[in-house]
Amino acid sequence: MRVQLIGFGNIGQGLAKVLLRKRKGLKQRHGLDIKVVSISDVTGTVADEKGVDLKKALGVMSKSGRLIDHPGATKMSGLEAIEEIDVDVVVEATVSNIKTGEPGLSHMLRAMEKKKHVVTSNKGPLVLKFRKLQKTAKKNGVQFRFEASVGGAMPILNLARQCLSADEILGIRGILNGTTNYILTRMLREESPFDIVLREAQELGIAEADPSYDIDGIDTASKLVILANAIMGTDATYKDVKIQGIRDVTPEAVKLAKDDGYAIKLIGEVSDNRLEVSPRLVSLNHPLNIEGTLNVATFETDIAGEITIVGKGAGAIETNSAILSDLVSIWNSQ
Amino acid sequence: MRVQLIGFGNIGQGLAKVLLRKRKGLKQRHGLDIKVVSISDVTGTVADEKGVDLKKALGVMSKSGRLIDHPGATKMSGLEAIEEIDVDVVVEATVSNIKTGEPGLSHMLRAMEKKKHVVTSNKGPLVLKFRKLQKTAKKNGVQFRFEASVGGAMPILNLARQCLSADEILGIRGILNGTTNYILTRMLREESPFDIVLREAQELGIAEADPSYDIDGIDTASKLVILANAIMGTDATYKDVKIQGIRDVTPEAVKLAKDDGYAIKLIGEVSDNRLEVSPRLVSLNHPLNIEGTLNVATFETDIAGEITIVGKGAGAIETNSAILSDLVSIWNSQ
Repeated sequence: MRVQLIGFGNIGQGLAKVLLRKRKGLKQRHGLDIKVVSISDVTGTVADEKGVDLKKALGVMSKSGRLIDHPGATKMSGLEAIEEIDVDVVVEATVSNIKTGEPGLSHMLRAMEKKKHVVTSNKGPLVLKFRKLQKTAKKNGVQFRFEASVGGAMPILNLARQCLSADEILGIRGILNGTTNYILTRMLREESPFDIVLREAQELGIAEADPSYDIDGIDTASKLVILANAIMGTDATYKDVKIQGIRDVTPEAVKLAKDDGYAIKLIGEVSDNRLEVSPRLVSLNHPLNIEGTLNVATFETDIAGEITIVGKGAGAIETNSAILSDLVSIWNSQ
Repeated sequence: MRVQLIGFGNIGQGLAKVLLRKRKGLKQRHGLDIKVVSISDVTGTVADEKGVDLKKALGVMSKSGRLIDHPGATKMSGLEAIEEIDVDVVVEATVSNIKTGEPGLSHMLRAMEKKKHVVTSNKGPLVLKFRKLQKTAKKNGVQFRFEASVGGAMPILNLARQCLSADEILGIRGILNGTTNYILTRMLREESPFDIVLREAQELGIAEADPSYDIDGIDTASKLVILANAIMGTDATYKDVKIQGIRDVTPEAVKLAKDDGYAIKLIGEVSDNRLEVSPRLVSLNHPLNIEGTLNVATFETDIAGEITIVGKGAGAIETNSAILSDLVSIWNSQ
């Protein structure tokens, strides 16, 4: 399987690391031999018909952080690489942009038009143009897979579509953002105010310097749109989500809830075509009440009842479990 | 898809009920038209080329509990029905027997030899003759699926095999029996002794009159064997499991654990080829700490880290979510 990697940040480098570890195992178990024939980042492209030396590429990144410093690299852009290099699958792992979807959106559409399967971790394009991407994939007879875009290592999309294939999914509720879950967990345990816990999370690298994307619910809303469109067949975009973040959650509210047997969690929910992100009470005994940076989602189904899945919502290595399982699925369906 | 149903107890009747509800939806979503051309129980067989009237068959069962009272029923046994009636898939839903595996084992082997796919909820044959069943299916080019045999509605096998296909599963820990989980949950909440909680569970119909199968860990051990063989490639039987049940768990031990932030749970665990069922401490904050009659399993994987799934471990309707999803998988792979 000839793979082209567009984007060589955290996730892209994680894929290279995981492939170095897992290549032999994937060959043995699935007969799948993955060859990365080109890697592109914003500075340029490294290509090799016989497979790029992943160790060497990782070495260049850890030294200079610029792929163009790799011996033999060219200034070819990601889009040009998609245009010119012949591969089976494009892994799109550029940074998510939920305003324009670019450059991921153009990468994905062009790859599909060139009859390449697309696997991605990039939420932006899916939040803005889900139906267009799905139609373009169908029209060109290629697969479009994006397990890594929601819930990191947690195989939430494939669980719903492959393992609950006979069930109708009536609703989805989940904690889809690890940073807010970490903050709310510490507020519950220590009865500390939001500002102080946020600052400590920033010092630990769990929250970003500009934390708005997480704590104002934007990240959760993006993932919710992808879940709703992919699993429940809606045609929603980011604008259809009613969003409230966790800035206004007080230690008093957290304590009051706790005394009654509840935790306050930032919950994303889809049901009856309504998409909503807001702080909600979750019973301390419910499977949705998970702690720390973990993610969780509960499906309400018509036959199986409630099914809940819990896993790591982020991580450069963990998220590549999802990217690789998408690659295996494409391989097995050929 | 022509289906033959062997066994018409709780699970078999649940399948008939679910099919009456879901037939139209399965046709629309998957193009799958399931026709049950024969049903057998210990008293006899009802067969109809054009599809047995499921409503009528359910009606007979609710009146007399014997399929032979159905108009036109014959004394044909399940094994004879497998021999003589032409179908695509046999759903084996007779009562589990972990001593001899019969009559399920003969049903499954004969069905495979007659080139029929097999879907089952019946643990017995899998606990005793897993490899033989798997080899016979392979030799005859048919599929053998048994999602319903472990964890009821919880799609644990398909999750590991389809959704975590790129990961190596290093270990599995889980609460695989709802009755013991219910008893331990109440002991934790109420600090009551085992005997009293067991008696109340029996009155509520959550525990059987002879509770040994559940509380002595036999049921958990059976499911563990199936998980280990199917997911981790071991060749274990029931005898390879070290088993300790929950009879000796005292209210004092439960309280002591709780004060330290732990619950005592009956955990089945596979790791390093060791299979063990015993009461263990589970942190109150861990996703494995789920309450009531729910089931849960945590996979330890090499890339994704820990992935946990929670769902209803039993129920005539819920378990048929698993049987139907196996039927959909067979349909989609043809």
